[in-house]
Amino acid sequence: MAAIFELSPRCRELHRKLTDFVENDCLPAEEVYESQVGTGDQRWKVVPPIMEELKAKARSLGLWNLFLHKGYPEGPGLTNLEYATLCEITGRCPRIAPEALNCSAPDTGNMEVFAKYGTPAQKQKYLVPLMNGEIRSAFAMTEIAVASSDATNIETKIDRVGDHYIINGHKWWISGAGDPRCKVFLVMGKSDPGNESQYKQQSIVIVEAGTPGLEIVRPMTVFGYDDAPEGHCEVKFTNVKIPVSNIIAGEGRGFEVIQGRLGPGRIHHCMRAIGMAERTLDLMIARVTDPSRRTFGQVLARHGTVAADVAKIRIELNAARLMVLAAADKIDRVGAKGALRDIAMAKVLVPNMLQKAIDLAIQAFGAAGLSQDFPLARFFAGARALRLADGPDEVHIQQLARQELLRGDDIRQKHDAIKARREQIFANNSKL
Amino acid sequence: MAAIFELSPRCRELHRKLTDFVENDCLPAEEVYESQVGTGDQRWKVVPPIMEELKAKARSLGLWNLFLHKGYPEGPGLTNLEYATLCEITGRCPRIAPEALNCSAPDTGNMEVFAKYGTPAQKQKYLVPLMNGEIRSAFAMTEIAVASSDATNIETKIDRVGDHYIINGHKWWISGAGDPRCKVFLVMGKSDPGNESQYKQQSIVIVEAGTPGLEIVRPMTVFGYDDAPEGHCEVKFTNVKIPVSNIIAGEGRGFEVIQGRLGPGRIHHCMRAIGMAERTLDLMIARVTDPSRRTFGQVLARHGTVAADVAKIRIELNAARLMVLAAADKIDRVGAKGALRDIAMAKVLVPNMLQKAIDLAIQAFGAAGLSQDFPLARFFAGARALRLADGPDEVHIQQLARQELLRGDDIRQKHDAIKARREQIFANNSKL
Amino acid sequence: MAAIFELSPRCRELHRKLTDFVENDCLPAEEVYESQVGTGDQRWKVVPPIMEELKAKARSLGLWNLFLHKGYPEGPGLTNLEYATLCEITGRCPRIAPEALNCSAPDTGNMEVFAKYGTPAQKQKYLVPLMNGEIRSAFAMTEIAVASSDATNIETKIDRVGDHYIINGHKWWISGAGDPRCKVFLVMGKSDPGNESQYKQQSIVIVEAGTPGLEIVRPMTVFGYDDAPEGHCEVKFTNVKIPVSNIIAGEGRGFEVIQGRLGPGRIHHCMRAIGMAERTLDLMIARVTDPSRRTFGQVLARHGTVAADVAKIRIELNAARLMVLAAADKIDRVGAKGALRDIAMAKVLVPNMLQKAIDLAIQAFGAAGLSQDFPLARFFAGARALRLADGPDEVHIQQLARQELLRGDDIRQKHDAIKARREQIFANNSKL
Amino acid sequence: MAAIFELSPRCRELHRKLTDFVENDCLPAEEVYESQVGTGDQRWKVVPPIMEELKAKARSLGLWNLFLHKGYPEGPGLTNLEYATLCEITGRCPRIAPEALNCSAPDTGNMEVFAKYGTPAQKQKYLVPLMNGEIRSAFAMTEIAVASSDATNIETKIDRVGDHYIINGHKWWISGAGDPRCKVFLVMGKSDPGNESQYKQQSIVIVEAGTPGLEIVRPMTVFGYDDAPEGHCEVKFTNVKIPVSNIIAGEGRGFEVIQGRLGPGRIHHCMRAIGMAERTLDLMIARVTDPSRRTFGQVLARHGTVAADVAKIRIELNAARLMVLAAADKIDRVGAKGALRDIAMAKVLVPNMLQKAIDLAIQAFGAAGLSQDFPLARFFAGARALRLADGPDEVHIQQLARQELLRGDDIRQKHDAIKARREQIFANNSKL
Repeated sequence: MAAIFELSPRCRELHRKLTDFVENDCLPAEEVYESQVGTGDQRWKVVPPIMEELKAKARSLGLWNLFLHKGYPEGPGLTNLEYATLCEITGRCPRIAPEALNCSAPDTGNMEVFAKYGTPAQKQKYLVPLMNGEIRSAFAMTEIAVASSDATNIETKIDRVGDHYIINGHKWWISGAGDPRCKVFLVMGKSDPGNESQYKQQSIVIVEAGTPGLEIVRPMTVFGYDDAPEGHCEVKFTNVKIPVSNIIAGEGRGFEVIQGRLGPGRIHHCMRAIGMAERTLDLMIARVTDPSRRTFGQVLARHGTVAADVAKIRIELNAARLMVLAAADKIDRVGAKGALRDIAMAKVLVPNMLQKAIDLAIQAFGAAGLSQDFPLARFFAGARALRLADGPDEVHIQQLARQELLRGDDIRQKHDAIKARREQIFANNSKL
Repeated sequence: MAAIFELSPRCRELHRKLTDFVENDCLPAEEVYESQVGTGDQRWKVVPPIMEELKAKARSLGLWNLFLHKGYPEGPGLTNLEYATLCEITGRCPRIAPEALNCSAPDTGNMEVFAKYGTPAQKQKYLVPLMNGEIRSAFAMTEIAVASSDATNIETKIDRVGDHYIINGHKWWISGAGDPRCKVFLVMGKSDPGNESQYKQQSIVIVEAGTPGLEIVRPMTVFGYDDAPEGHCEVKFTNVKIPVSNIIAGEGRGFEVIQGRLGPGRIHHCMRAIGMAERTLDLMIARVTDPSRRTFGQVLARHGTVAADVAKIRIELNAARLMVLAAADKIDRVGAKGALRDIAMAKVLVPNMLQKAIDLAIQAFGAAGLSQDFPLARFFAGARALRLADGPDEVHIQQLARQELLRGDDIRQKHDAIKARREQIFANNSKL
Repeated sequence: MAAIFELSPRCRELHRKLTDFVENDCLPAEEVYESQVGTGDQRWKVVPPIMEELKAKARSLGLWNLFLHKGYPEGPGLTNLEYATLCEITGRCPRIAPEALNCSAPDTGNMEVFAKYGTPAQKQKYLVPLMNGEIRSAFAMTEIAVASSDATNIETKIDRVGDHYIINGHKWWISGAGDPRCKVFLVMGKSDPGNESQYKQQSIVIVEAGTPGLEIVRPMTVFGYDDAPEGHCEVKFTNVKIPVSNIIAGEGRGFEVIQGRLGPGRIHHCMRAIGMAERTLDLMIARVTDPSRRTFGQVLARHGTVAADVAKIRIELNAARLMVLAAADKIDRVGAKGALRDIAMAKVLVPNMLQKAIDLAIQAFGAAGLSQDFPLARFFAGARALRLADGPDEVHIQQLARQELLRGDDIRQKHDAIKARREQIFANNSKL
Repeated sequence: MAAIFELSPRCRELHRKLTDFVENDCLPAEEVYESQVGTGDQRWKVVPPIMEELKAKARSLGLWNLFLHKGYPEGPGLTNLEYATLCEITGRCPRIAPEALNCSAPDTGNMEVFAKYGTPAQKQKYLVPLMNGEIRSAFAMTEIAVASSDATNIETKIDRVGDHYIINGHKWWISGAGDPRCKVFLVMGKSDPGNESQYKQQSIVIVEAGTPGLEIVRPMTVFGYDDAPEGHCEVKFTNVKIPVSNIIAGEGRGFEVIQGRLGPGRIHHCMRAIGMAERTLDLMIARVTDPSRRTFGQVLARHGTVAADVAKIRIELNAARLMVLAAADKIDRVGAKGALRDIAMAKVLVPNMLQKAIDLAIQAFGAAGLSQDFPLARFFAGARALRLADGPDEVHIQQLARQELLRGDDIRQKHDAIKARREQIFANNSKL
């Protein structure tokens, strides 16, 4: 991390501890974890036991729920910038470390929602076990039939009938829904589709796993990965009936809730991506400097293009990191809403940088880079998905463009003033 | 295909028949095939029955063994250029159509080897059932411990002991080795590691499936795909004993054999990749013009960047196709050796074009593009692997560079002549 | 050139002669020519005498007016494909060779217009001296106040008053207008701005140099080049009065005339760009293999990235050339209108390829590459301008996209048919 | 600028004043300045009078010699970070503003050299008038015959003969050498070419303009620009005789002197490039939102690709700025030597970003973007040259790569430790 962002002594201590934990506990556990994931019938029924060991250790080290930033009394009180720098470390081991710290999506965002908007009863029932790492959760937003990158397209119905809501909808890419520990879904739908404001039609409600009418249809794959045990599932809601007390924040506030949820979450994703990029670069450097691997008589790193690729990854990685940290810092200073533009820029830049870095690393590895023997191919799938998750590149680019283009009138006015002043100078000069 | 390459009436007829077969038989069979691939214990034991139906139909239509070009009396006598144009059509359905026509790698290359170098007994035992589509085969070259993109690195030992060879080696990425129908391996190793010529140390031998000491260790995955039932397997040879009659062409001719094998094979891969790109573009166009999918009030194709991406794919696709066809044509005119440079250029250009095209298409599809519901993610894995298979981009680029750079002396001489002539002109002019 | 395009014996002979002429006469004359271009007051008054010598020699060699293809009785009767291959050779020396052969823009396009649409009197007065290389000409289309890449925006007025037209308009980037030999302008304007068809409002008229009201305002520069003696000038038409007999083809046919004019012209530009790219690559190879230039102990070509750049330029250059030749061939077979899409693809691909190639070459040259000592910087300016001339990339891309996207309905129908067939197969299989 | 870099109140005040000065005085003076540059015989004899007016005003505003950072008692005591942020503002008007503030290269670097290494007599004679803006200076390093990006290649001889040095050498690209005010050259050459250390062979000496044997051969052009009145000149030193007191720092210290000179200078170049990029983006936005410029019925910004380009420039620009500021900050904290890697990264990233941004802007402008009517083409020439000045991209990339690759052994050791720990976990688990 660029030293320009000074860390507090407390944060430096967390860094040290977390780095140790990731290197000595999480990275060595990766293959163990994979070997413990269920196969065949057991695919979606087993949670690798090593994860519970790691969670216990992380908690005992004080590396627990670090994501809940200063604004939340339940958390350890880190700033977004501080937590972002920690995310980079967990990002080096993305399948294990975030969950071991109880800091993995979508639980973190859901816990924030419960902490910020939950009633005391909701907190007791869902937030407490989530913060204890006893259950997991899902966030059901993306729909199969509409372009959900534009959230106003969402079609799931949340109809009030007496003291209940009846939910009907068809979602997919619901991360974590396949996990046997997933006990609660936050579901976005339209409770007031006729509202004249496109942004007040949506509500978010709580649906517990096992509620009749809630069907986990199948896991989706990303490239060939199903990401068991969490999974990214197709989920159907057919006349799902829940009490009205299961509303989050109140009817019509769904848009507001997700807006607050997404900003910092994107920064966490981005910083973990920075960590993935660092590990990718480490793997590549180790491979291309390996004295036992030679082509045409030379260690790979002696081939100029390979070395140049290493340098280019380093440059783009460091630039991308600065951008995420600057966005995190801005959230701390002016809030997530004021930092929307900075977050969007990081959200576009980082996954593209990561995808490109991994692609170069794979090329240096040869076919091994595509296989289960190294984390590169899986990282690639994650990077590629991140260019679509939480809004595809195009949506962020379009919004950034719109804001920049608003400056057109001002600039043209300034240009007119410069031109007027120029003509005056020419006139003065010609008088001489 | 650019009309500049005139097809013979016979080839046009094959085009028509093959296009029908792919559209009406192969593409509709894709999901059936996937549903018939074994799961769990049966993963590597089952061959989807639909494939045998399709093979029977293709054979009855005269769409069988088309790959065996003019040089082989056993084949239908197409030119490389003609067969290349047919490969584009099968490439639209790459999991099904090539095999249905008995034209899929690695069998095609292996059949060419048997046809060209096989003894009558070898032909009878292996070529006949291969050409009948009764068995399948593998080509065991890439090794786990060395950078195999430089084939002189190969370490597998083929030691002669009396009337036998004893083979010891550790290979991986052996395509087709997982298939229950795979009955024969062509294995590359060093029979004369001390030979002063780096290109005469290698031999290729025949190892039948089931020979003691031949162990299929595990399937490798590409991104998350294991490509069952064929698979790309890790394979160990431990004191595998075969009769000396199992040598191909003779001791020390391994390099020569693979050189002849790889050229046209790369062109076939490239043309299938062109077909994959065409299907990718079709899928993208269908999606972005789908009137039911709108973001921010507009069909996707109305967003300028999406439309521009479609055009850019089209331009690069057409340029790439011309390059492959020109290379195929050159093979026909001067042989594979004389066309090495053209083949190498196509081999670099095409998979990169395809990878980029699919990446853009995925972005237009959103998360669906990454999933099992569309062929894009699997195509991507194939494109990415093709940048490494048969030599990574870097090796071809390096060889192309070397050849270009050889021109340096000639060019400098020409420049000197131009300079001398220039000074003469200046001198003449100044006299006036 | 890819050997796939077989040249006739006559064309092969022209190739040989032209290659000799360019290497032995034109390239040695480059610096002589530059030294003869006027400076100071004489900038726009002098034509380098060496040019007239070269023209005489080219004519005596039968290398004269080659551009006038088969369709024109006045010309030597080459096909577009044949002439395109000759353009590559002149493109190696773009400031000298095309003009020496009387084959340089905008004269070639203007001569085609006169040959195709001119009255006998117009032909006698303008076409004859143009074909003799006695005068030069300009084509005045682009306007200063509107986005002229959309030709319907053109605002110049051509008003009929009795037996005359009165022309008022403000143009710029009128190539050749600065040349003292430029005797005739073809001017595009609106004679019928109220016509309901946007494509029938325009006419083209002849304005002779020296006509009152025709003012050459200033030369425009491209990167710092003014391209004297031709120049790309700002030109004003203020109540310019010409006889009605100066109309080309008839009122309202302006659009039709430029459509026919632009297609083959773009191909010629593209093929000359291919020649520029070949010379760029030659220069780069000569430089990086120069044994006297070493960095960090090595000849530049030994640095892997430089060698890789050479190979990448080669690959993209060859692909681009195939694309231009295929488009030229299509013009020959189906006419310029039927080849619009092919021409547009070449027009996008080639200048981008060339710009990138030169940029890489400049980087290999260091600062020398930017200077007057090598043609690279001037080539770059030409390549960059070509991405805007005759329609910017964006316009061609948009039109290509539109055509591709029209296929959407067809593809979706086909997909529906495949789906129906698939369900049938599943149904049949489940019956078993 | 990212708010994360807090500016002191004093620096904020300088920002305000400088922004006013650039917008109200410098930008309006641009065309005046160009119109006052000499033409014909006067090209290298005239200094535009407006420049002296602007210098007087800047000095009166306290905007003078800001570059001399904290380490120099003669300067205003800004940090490198603070001065960098001011460079961005002057970079918006790069031909005028830096010189108006007496902060333009190569004078700034030369003044630093005199301030740091100069004897009292040298300071009195050269530093005082330079800091007063009364004279200008040049730095003569790059040579015509060798690849000077590797400074050990330099061949100019500085031979001691009695109390004098005799200098013989052939340089080019000596910026400022054409300026009539240029009174002093710092010349790098080899005083001890046999020294066993490659880094102790060089010395830097002072040569006054007008010294016999010092010949300004010609101005070099960058694309078509000669950048009068400064110029980038070819310069010959033929038996140039100077007193030994004209040595800088002492014999053999040439390498040391340039190392210290280049670091911060690169950062200033980079931050001015950021300013150029901001102005480029402003120009582009003003153009594409101009309601009077429409293509195909729409303001340019409504075409999706144009808007996306604007957003992409913004993202890359902001990332690049952060990188430069982080490097400047690091210089402040650990010195230029400790920040070498950060400086190199910025030096690669920024000019490439700028070149790409200008290229996109030119495309949006059409041909006007290439002309003298807008600063884009000249900016492009500057950006392109900056990729070569102070070491081409390749040299920085190679050095960055070398440093990264040094980490190989450490990473492999860590991987071994992880592997050992992993096997332990597997062993423990299998015991259960």
